[in-house]
Formats: sequence, structure tokens, C-alpha cells
Amino acid sequence: MTLGLIGAGRIGRVHAQNVQQRIQDARIILVADPNEEAARRCADDFSVKFAVPDYRTILQSPAVEAVVICSATHTHAQIIAEAAAAGKHIFCEKPIDHTLPAIDHALAAVAKAGVKLQVGFNRRFDANYARVRQAVVTGEIGQPHLMHIISRDPGPPPADYIKVSGGMFLDMTIHDFDMARFLLGDEVVEVYAAAGVLVDPQIGALGDIDTALVTLKFASGAIAVIDNSRRAVYGYDQRVEILGSAGSVSTANVFPNSAILATADHIHRDLPLNFFMDRYTESYLAEMRAFVNAVRTDAPVPVSGADGRVPVVMAIAARASYLDNRPVRLSEIA
Amino acid sequence: MTLGLIGAGRIGRVHAQNVQQRIQDARIILVADPNEEAARRCADDFSVKFAVPDYRTILQSPAVEAVVICSATHTHAQIIAEAAAAGKHIFCEKPIDHTLPAIDHALAAVAKAGVKLQVGFNRRFDANYARVRQAVVTGEIGQPHLMHIISRDPGPPPADYIKVSGGMFLDMTIHDFDMARFLLGDEVVEVYAAAGVLVDPQIGALGDIDTALVTLKFASGAIAVIDNSRRAVYGYDQRVEILGSAGSVSTANVFPNSAILATADHIHRDLPLNFFMDRYTESYLAEMRAFVNAVRTDAPVPVSGADGRVPVVMAIAARASYLDNRPVRLSEIA
Amino acid sequence: MTLGLIGAGRIGRVHAQNVQQRIQDARIILVADPNEEAARRCADDFSVKFAVPDYRTILQSPAVEAVVICSATHTHAQIIAEAAAAGKHIFCEKPIDHTLPAIDHALAAVAKAGVKLQVGFNRRFDANYARVRQAVVTGEIGQPHLMHIISRDPGPPPADYIKVSGGMFLDMTIHDFDMARFLLGDEVVEVYAAAGVLVDPQIGALGDIDTALVTLKFASGAIAVIDNSRRAVYGYDQRVEILGSAGSVSTANVFPNSAILATADHIHRDLPLNFFMDRYTESYLAEMRAFVNAVRTDAPVPVSGADGRVPVVMAIAARASYLDNRPVRLSEIA
Amino acid sequence: MTLGLIGAGRIGRVHAQNVQQRIQDARIILVADPNEEAARRCADDFSVKFAVPDYRTILQSPAVEAVVICSATHTHAQIIAEAAAAGKHIFCEKPIDHTLPAIDHALAAVAKAGVKLQVGFNRRFDANYARVRQAVVTGEIGQPHLMHIISRDPGPPPADYIKVSGGMFLDMTIHDFDMARFLLGDEVVEVYAAAGVLVDPQIGALGDIDTALVTLKFASGAIAVIDNSRRAVYGYDQRVEILGSAGSVSTANVFPNSAILATADHIHRDLPLNFFMDRYTESYLAEMRAFVNAVRTDAPVPVSGADGRVPVVMAIAARASYLDNRPVRLSEIA
Repeated sequence: MTLGLIGAGRIGRVHAQNVQQRIQDARIILVADPNEEAARRCADDFSVKFAVPDYRTILQSPAVEAVVICSATHTHAQIIAEAAAAGKHIFCEKPIDHTLPAIDHALAAVAKAGVKLQVGFNRRFDANYARVRQAVVTGEIGQPHLMHIISRDPGPPPADYIKVSGGMFLDMTIHDFDMARFLLGDEVVEVYAAAGVLVDPQIGALGDIDTALVTLKFASGAIAVIDNSRRAVYGYDQRVEILGSAGSVSTANVFPNSAILATADHIHRDLPLNFFMDRYTESYLAEMRAFVNAVRTDAPVPVSGADGRVPVVMAIAARASYLDNRPVRLSEIA
Repeated sequence: MTLGLIGAGRIGRVHAQNVQQRIQDARIILVADPNEEAARRCADDFSVKFAVPDYRTILQSPAVEAVVICSATHTHAQIIAEAAAAGKHIFCEKPIDHTLPAIDHALAAVAKAGVKLQVGFNRRFDANYARVRQAVVTGEIGQPHLMHIISRDPGPPPADYIKVSGGMFLDMTIHDFDMARFLLGDEVVEVYAAAGVLVDPQIGALGDIDTALVTLKFASGAIAVIDNSRRAVYGYDQRVEILGSAGSVSTANVFPNSAILATADHIHRDLPLNFFMDRYTESYLAEMRAFVNAVRTDAPVPVSGADGRVPVVMAIAARASYLDNRPVRLSEIA
Repeated sequence: MTLGLIGAGRIGRVHAQNVQQRIQDARIILVADPNEEAARRCADDFSVKFAVPDYRTILQSPAVEAVVICSATHTHAQIIAEAAAAGKHIFCEKPIDHTLPAIDHALAAVAKAGVKLQVGFNRRFDANYARVRQAVVTGEIGQPHLMHIISRDPGPPPADYIKVSGGMFLDMTIHDFDMARFLLGDEVVEVYAAAGVLVDPQIGALGDIDTALVTLKFASGAIAVIDNSRRAVYGYDQRVEILGSAGSVSTANVFPNSAILATADHIHRDLPLNFFMDRYTESYLAEMRAFVNAVRTDAPVPVSGADGRVPVVMAIAARASYLDNRPVRLSEIA
Repeated sequence: MTLGLIGAGRIGRVHAQNVQQRIQDARIILVADPNEEAARRCADDFSVKFAVPDYRTILQSPAVEAVVICSATHTHAQIIAEAAAAGKHIFCEKPIDHTLPAIDHALAAVAKAGVKLQVGFNRRFDANYARVRQAVVTGEIGQPHLMHIISRDPGPPPADYIKVSGGMFLDMTIHDFDMARFLLGDEVVEVYAAAGVLVDPQIGALGDIDTALVTLKFASGAIAVIDNSRRAVYGYDQRVEILGSAGSVSTANVFPNSAILATADHIHRDLPLNFFMDRYTESYLAEMRAFVNAVRTDAPVPVSGADGRVPVVMAIAARASYLDNRPVRLSEIA
């Protein structure tokens, strides 16, 4: 299976390395980036034959079966629509877009073309979250009642990033919104966001927040809370806990080693993995393997375009909830 | 120091045993219970000299310096007022009452008499929570931003108890409301309660709930969530986690032993302590020691009457929030 | 049941407090110590009626049913013999004696008099070790193959104590020798001691050792190792692990709280309980309850005189093994 | 850097995959195996240009700079000698040989030729063990006193393998002998092996053992014990603990996920990784990277031929100790 990579930035390089080195059945043959130097370096580093500035070169190439979209978020929807029209299967990084009309435009194009679209919610493929999902699916913990999703970054991104991020709910919580739906296999009907600026006043000055507890009510009656902070000084904190009628399941962070040291002061261990690319290394590989497999076997993709849309609705509702200080139903948004 | 015990039920017997057997400087000399058989058995079991049916006998006894009130909740406020008028120092089980006028009447009597009143929020004296509080006070974790309080019972109480309990917020969450204030050393300004009936429809039929996530906003800007369930099948679940600007602190449940078994199926350990009296054994002793010490040294009690009042306000606000599905400010209530 | 306490030192006071305050069915009525001040203080602190200098006063008192021997080790055997002759049941601290003839003399006297003798191997009554024993007895881990007993003190005792201690094997490892037999329910046939002076040269100057790995071979074929150090800077380290044909069981240390702190440096927790009396508080109570119960119901004591003798044989064998640097069979000693 | 792979069995394929897919600076261009089908499949699967039956084809190829020897153990020494004579750098799987004369012959050839030889003790490159080593090197735990190495297989190998394995000490403990030296950075002077047949009588019938505790005395005075079993039903058990003068360090097993499940029965988690190739995946990659780097930069290899020889001496000494039931000094062997 032949792929074209659109966007040769940080996440584009992750996918390039995985496809070229660790996925047997796929090969990136073209990489496009308006930053030609970045495209060239990516091609060199990961044995991609051609580097081009314009992604349309990829879309026009009959040799390319599918594209991997890792460009800037605001370009996703347009490229999806064009790629679909060109008959390419599509893997697109999250979020599809920050606005629903753009998303709907892209999804309509995908539907019309009958191509596959997988959205890059890689965490679903992480071993910890997959095990939690399994506990729900198999009934090990019975009917879910309560859930906590902890998702904290080691430190806030730079101000320039904050400005174009769409805000914390669209940029950071989006992963947790997806995780909430995925883990429970249930739909959220209402959100309530308690949030504030506790980490860095500069974030507040930019109109964003850095700390939040978002309550979710599900169709089943289950209730969940997402805990977000832009700064956990001890590192990247990614955990989940679900209480069900027959038991609970919870996960811990991932550590570089399991060594415990005991000294005259205290018992201690090293900090958890601090960077999302170290923490989720294997999940990026697994999601791409799943995409390749879905295309090759003409099976449904594990994270659909609809799965990419709902978290955006949730983020918009959370923002409205925060601004109005009231619970907001998703049906008000979409 | 001489004490009179009012109420010889389950919790009364806990205090009786602690005072008589494990506190050097205090002695219960009278126990009162309208159930004379209960009073008599308590006196016999714990070497209390006199058992009487009417608590007023205790209040009238000049030999009694302080009373320990363990009677039914609806009698607390009246007995406090009378005990204060009689010049007795008072230890009273939580909650003081389910209604604010009754509480205010009792507190006014205490203030007028100048006696000491300690409310039985024993969990403050638990080693785990005390260590968390220490982490906040000493600045080990910096300025608190986010908190999770997990508080789940092994199973719901009988319907007869539910009926007179005042509802889950006043009966069960009341401890967590106190804990929230205690751990952060901060005041709650607003609550939002997402709740439902997921454990047992009979609880719903009685007008109560059995599952809740209560969001708290503090004066400092910190945000917290209390997680309550009437049934965690694995046992009594009592944990807390705080994220601060300089780190986090979290506690685990208490287990009867630390043995880990590894078999061909899985790695496992025994369930945590299942009963609040086993889990909090030492904290009941510690709170009573603190009360005895406060009276003997004329020091402030560690849990004041005001500390007993605020959680009731929070419970009333949580109930209103649940019924109206909106955030409720404490200032609306009290 | 009425008891006489012989020896009002540290461990004597532990038993005094437990019996007087926490055991319903027993009462110490006499305490004897050649240090009259110590006897008096013990009597005052724990409501013991009479304090006397000479233990024979206790033996001669017809009101005393049983004695608790907490005097210096070298006096144990003689007092046991006399107490047995006086028809008293006996609880005696470990070890019975450092020499086998003295032990055999004492045990013969006990056998002749038909009284009960329980030896103070309190750790058998600890919740962790009891759970491990249960895992063996119930077959949860199948047939035991390998065992590690970790037993490390926070720091070495003073030189004066080392001199009269009988050496590390008789003073410290003795508990682990007992634990080894107890946990597996099996008899040791051979020991090999690799040991040295790594903690403090002064200990070596006194002819003792401070660090050891003692290998034990059991009649069943199981093999175990005891790990001893006079100094674990992080505190009192008491753990065990058994591998069996169907699984393994292991225990952890006991901590004052379960709080985990995560800071920018590392994840850490407080040190484990540091003092054997804090670590084993409940086991001292439980062993005395078991003794009282055995006497009252005329049941076998849970730790017999023979159980007190074997660990001394093992200690002597371990010392010989260390000195000769060869495995030593217990049958060579006794 | 160009490599030739000698031996296309299980471990040969691990190295082939790592070099071809995950090491930038090296490339296997030839693979040899007397089983031509295996050589061919390996070449196909991992993009190796040529597959040949005779390893001498590799040694004679001027294009090959280094060889990776993964053939049967009894062929290692001879191939090393020939490869050295051919001027090839050498990576050789452990053990070099079961006998010292063969090892010495190989090492002499390597010394004479001046080529590099790295022995495949991959566990040194595991994150857990590397962290333990770091704790020793940096002085975090002070001077090492006591060490436990736990190393248990999930189940015994088939009888055919046992027959040619050289016995448990040479086949399985060899890794732990290396680890002991590596972790402490110290030399063993004496071993004592307590061992037996507890897992499977058939292993005993073949003259081998399946369970052992091997005591090691180090030049520094430190003492260690290696715990080996051919069957831990819960999986592959690989842990270490060191007590030093300033603290201790210990590691835990590696698990496929961190999910903890709590049900009405117990708290449990999934079994640890069960297969050495899953457990040590990254260490195989890291050792090969280190070898490639040592050759390319002409730096010393991290695991030398001498490092490959000493564990064999220890295994021979352990076998002698077990048969004679006495401590055996390494100086008696070599």
C-alpha cells in the first residue's frame, strides 16, 4: 500500500518513521510540505522517494492510495475534501477542524467519495486505555457509573501556540472527550465545565484557560469528570478510572523504569515519561497499522469521521458552559 | 476529666471503648440512652459506673465536665443547647442537624455559654488525610489547583435508614464537604452536583440519589470534585488527590495486609478494609484525644461548631444544584 | 485470668499495656523487677496493684494463674523452670536461652509440671505474615519451592547490647528462623551462612557480624534465604516472598500513611514504620490474646516450647556455618 | 557498517529485524544458516540480500565488516576464532562456550587479531537494570552490601533442550552471573549453590536441576543471592534488589499494561510479560546499537570477551558447589 504524507512537522515525522520502518505492508512514496527543507529532510531521514512543496502533487499522483494529513489544523478539512474527491483514503490528525461547518463539509466529501477516513485519536490504541475499554466491553466491571479522566501536560505550550490552538478544550481536552466516548462506548448528552487560569496569567490574557474539571453526563446515566491542567510539574499525567456496578478499573502513568529507591529521606522513583511522543510511541504505530489494515482489507476504520466530529461538539459545548457557568447540552450545539 | 455519654448505639460504643480503654486522662462516668438495655450493656462492657435513660440526668450531674453526643441526629441541636446551658463542654457527632435554623440555635447557645464544642469529623484525624493536609500546609505541593475526593461505600444502607438520612449529600457527602475545606484550608463558594440513581432504583423511589460527582469552586480559584457512590463492590473506597503548582499528593485505600499473590491467572491482593469503623479506628481515638486535650488545656477544638455548619450548607446547596441542574453559590443558601 | 509480670522493661511494659487496656479477660495483678523504680512505674502506669522486686513473690502468689516473663534472656530458663514448678502457665519472651542445655532444662520442667508455655514469637501474629501463612496452608501458591525473608534493622544496637546479645543470629535472625519454620510449616535440615561486617567495624571488633545471607534447606526440599542487616537507612525492613508450584506470595513494609507525593524531582512517599514496636504493635496484642485464650480454654498454645528451641538450634548452626564456611546440618547441633 | 548474520534461528531473527529496521547505521547483507530454508526466510523477511548455507561464505566476504553469531552454542568459539582470523568484528550470543579451553582459544584469537568482540548479555541494556546500575555508580545507595537477583522462567524448556543446555547454571543462571558482576561492578570470589529438582522430575532424570539459590561472595565483601526457578506460573519474573550503606534500590516486573481491577473478589492486574523477547525487546536493540557504535567509533565494547568468560567460570563453580555441597572459590576453577 502506497501513502502520501502531507505535512513534515513533528507528528508527520512520527508517522513517516513508523510507516517506513515498522509497518511491513505500507510505504510512503511522497511527502509534501510548503516548507521544502522540512519535506526534504523527512524524505531523506525516512527513505521517502519524493519531497514536494504542494500537497496537490500527492493528490494527483495515481500511485498514491492513501494520504496521511499532518498539516496545520485549519487546513485539514479542505485537504480532506480534496483528497476524498481524488479518491484517496485518508488518515487525518486530530482535530478535523475547530468549526462544525468545515468538519461537515469534509465529512460530506468523504461520504460522497466513499473513501475511508480515520481520525488520529491515537490514545485509543494505547495498551492502558485499550485494557480499560476491554474491562468495560467484557463486563468485568459491570455497568459503568462514574469515570475520572486525568489528563495533564508537563507544562503549557508557548503563547504563540496558545493563540492558534482553538483554546484548551479544542486543543487538549479533545483527546479526553474522545477517550470518554471510547471507554464507555456511550454518548455524552451534557457537559459542565468549571475552569480557570491557575497556572499562568498569560494564558488568561490570551482568553484561554489552563485548568479545568469538565463534568460529562452520558445517555446511559453514567457521569464522568475530565481533569485537565496545563502544568503537572512531575510530568505528563495520563490516567483513567471507571467505577462500575461490578467493580472498578484504573490505570497508572508510564515510567521509564520501575526502580524504587529507598534512602534515609524517603522512598522514591523516577518521574513518569514526560513527553507525549515517548508516552504514546506505540499507540502512534498501532493506529497507523490499524489504518493500513482497514484500507487493505476494506474493513471499517476504528476511528471514524463521526468520531472526529463529536469531540469538537463537546469542546464547543464545554467552552459555552464555562462562559455561561451552566450545564450545556450537546443538542444545543449541533 | 469526667465525661457523660449520650447515646449508646454503635458510634457511642466506639467512643466509650476509646475513652475507657485508651485515653488516660478521661473517664466516662455516666451513659444515657432511652433504650435502657443499650445503656446498661454499654456501661457493663466499658466499665461506666452509671447507666440512665434520660440524658438530662447527665446534664444535671455536677461531676460531669463534658458530654459526648451520639444520639439520633435530629436530637443533636437541642441537646447541644441544653448541655451548653448546663455549662458542659460538648463533643457532638456529625451532622449537628439537617437544618440551618436548628444549627444556628445550637451554636448560639454554645457561644453564649462559652463552652467548647467539637464536631465529630473524625476523618481529619486519619493518618492519610493528615499527611495530605500537611503537604498543603507545608507547601510541598505548592498552591492547590485541582482536587479529587473519592468516597464510596461498600453498599447502600437499608431503606429505613435512607428515609431518615437527610439524603446522600447530608448523610454521606457531608464528610467529604468537610474534608474538602479541611484539606485545602479554603472556603467553597459554589457547588454543582451531577447525580443520579445508578445503584438501586429503590433509593430513587425514596427521593434520594446514590451516585454523584459534585464540583466545588473555592475562594482561591481551586476546583475540586467529590465522587460518591453508595456501592463500590470491592469495599470502602476513601482516597484523595490534590494537584498543586509544585506537585501532587494522593492517597490509597487501607488494606488488611500487604500480601500480593501471583498465580497463573493474575496478580492479586485482598480487598481493602470494608467497614468504616475498621478503616477509621484510629481516627476516632485521635479525635477524642484531641477533644479531651482541648478541654484540659483550654485550647481551641480542632473541629469547631462553624466547621460543623458549613458542610450542611454545602449539602443543601448540592441538593439544590442537583434539583435545578445549575451551579449554586453557598451565599444563596446561608 | 490473673497474671504476674516478670520484668518491667520496654517489652514488659508493652505486654502490661496490652493486657490491662485491651484484653478483656485477663488482668496483671503483680509486677516484679529488681529495678524497683521500674516495677513501681509500670504498676502505676498500667493499674497493676502490686509492684515487687523479686519475681519469686509472684511465683508464690496463689492468686496468679500465669506469668509473663520479660526479664533478661539469661534468666528466662531458670524462671521458666521455677514457674512451672509453681504450677503457673508461662508466656516467655524469645529466646528461651542462648544455650540448649538451659532450654532443655526449662522445657523438661514445663513438661513435668504440665503447664502451658508460649514463646514470644510475636511476628507470627502479624497480619502480613499470617496472610502469607494462609496462602501456604490453603494451597493458594501450591507446594513451596523458594523463600526470601528480608529482615533488616534501621540501625545497629549499642555496643553494650551487642556484647550480651548472643550474636546476630541468636538476637536478630532468631525471629526469621522462627518465621521460616512457621511460614512453610516445614523443618529446616541444613543452614549455610554467608556473613560479614559491612555496617560497623566495631561490631566486628566485638566478634559479631552485621550482615548475612543465610540459606536454609527444608525437609520438603524447599530452599530459603534469610537476608539480615543491622542497618537499612530507610527504616525497619520486614518482608517475605515465597514461590510455590502454583504461584507466589509477597509482602511489603508497613507505612505510616499511603500518601504519594509527586514533585518536579521525583515520586516519593514517607519512610516505612521505623521501630519494631510501631511495626508490630498489633501482633504483640494478638499473641497475648492467644496466650490468654489458650490458658482459659485449655487449648494448645500457638508457639510451643519446642518452637522456642528450634530457632536456637538454627542460630547455633548458622554461627558454626559462618565460622567454618560450610553448610551445617541441624542434626550436628542438637 | 555492513554485517553478516550467522544463524537464522529465533535470536538471529531478533537481531536481523533490529538491525534492518531500527538501526540507521548498519545493514546485514548476508545471512548464513545450514538450514537453508531458515536462512532464506530470514533474508526475505528482513531485506537481507544474500542467504547462504555456510558461515564461511560470510567470513570470506570482504564487504562484511562484522559478524553477528547466533548459531548453536557449541559452534560459537570456533566461529569466533575464524571470524577474528578473518579480521571481522564480532557480536556473539551468550554463552561463548560451555568449556573454558574453548573460550580461551576464542579469546586468544580475538586478542591476536585485534578485533572487537561483544558478548550478548542484553539485560545490561534493559532500562530497569541500567537504572539499578546507575544507582550503584552514582552512589545513590552507597556501598553495596546485599543483593537479591530473582530470575525465574515461566516454564521449563523441552527435554531436548535441557539435554544440550549445559545445565541450568550455564543456560539460565549465566545471565544472572553476568548481572551480578555488572550491577555491583565487583568480582565474585566464591559461590555456594543450594539447588534441587522441585519443578519437574524429568529434569532431574536428565541430571539437571530446576530450582536454586546461589550465594555469591564479592571481593568487596558484598554478598548476593540469585534465585532461579524454571517455573513461575505467573510468568517471566525478573527483578533485582540491592541494599547499600546509604539506601536500597529494587525493580519490579514489566507488565503489558498498568490497569488495576477491583471486583468483589479482590484487587488484581494482568500477569507480567511472559516471554523474554517481549520483556527484553528494547534491550536487544540497545545492545546491537552499542555494538555498532563501538565498531564505528572504535570505542571499547560494553560487554567484553572477558565479561563473557567469567559467568561461565561462575556456572562451573556453582555446579561444583551443588555437587559437593560446599562453597567453591572461583580460583579453584580458573
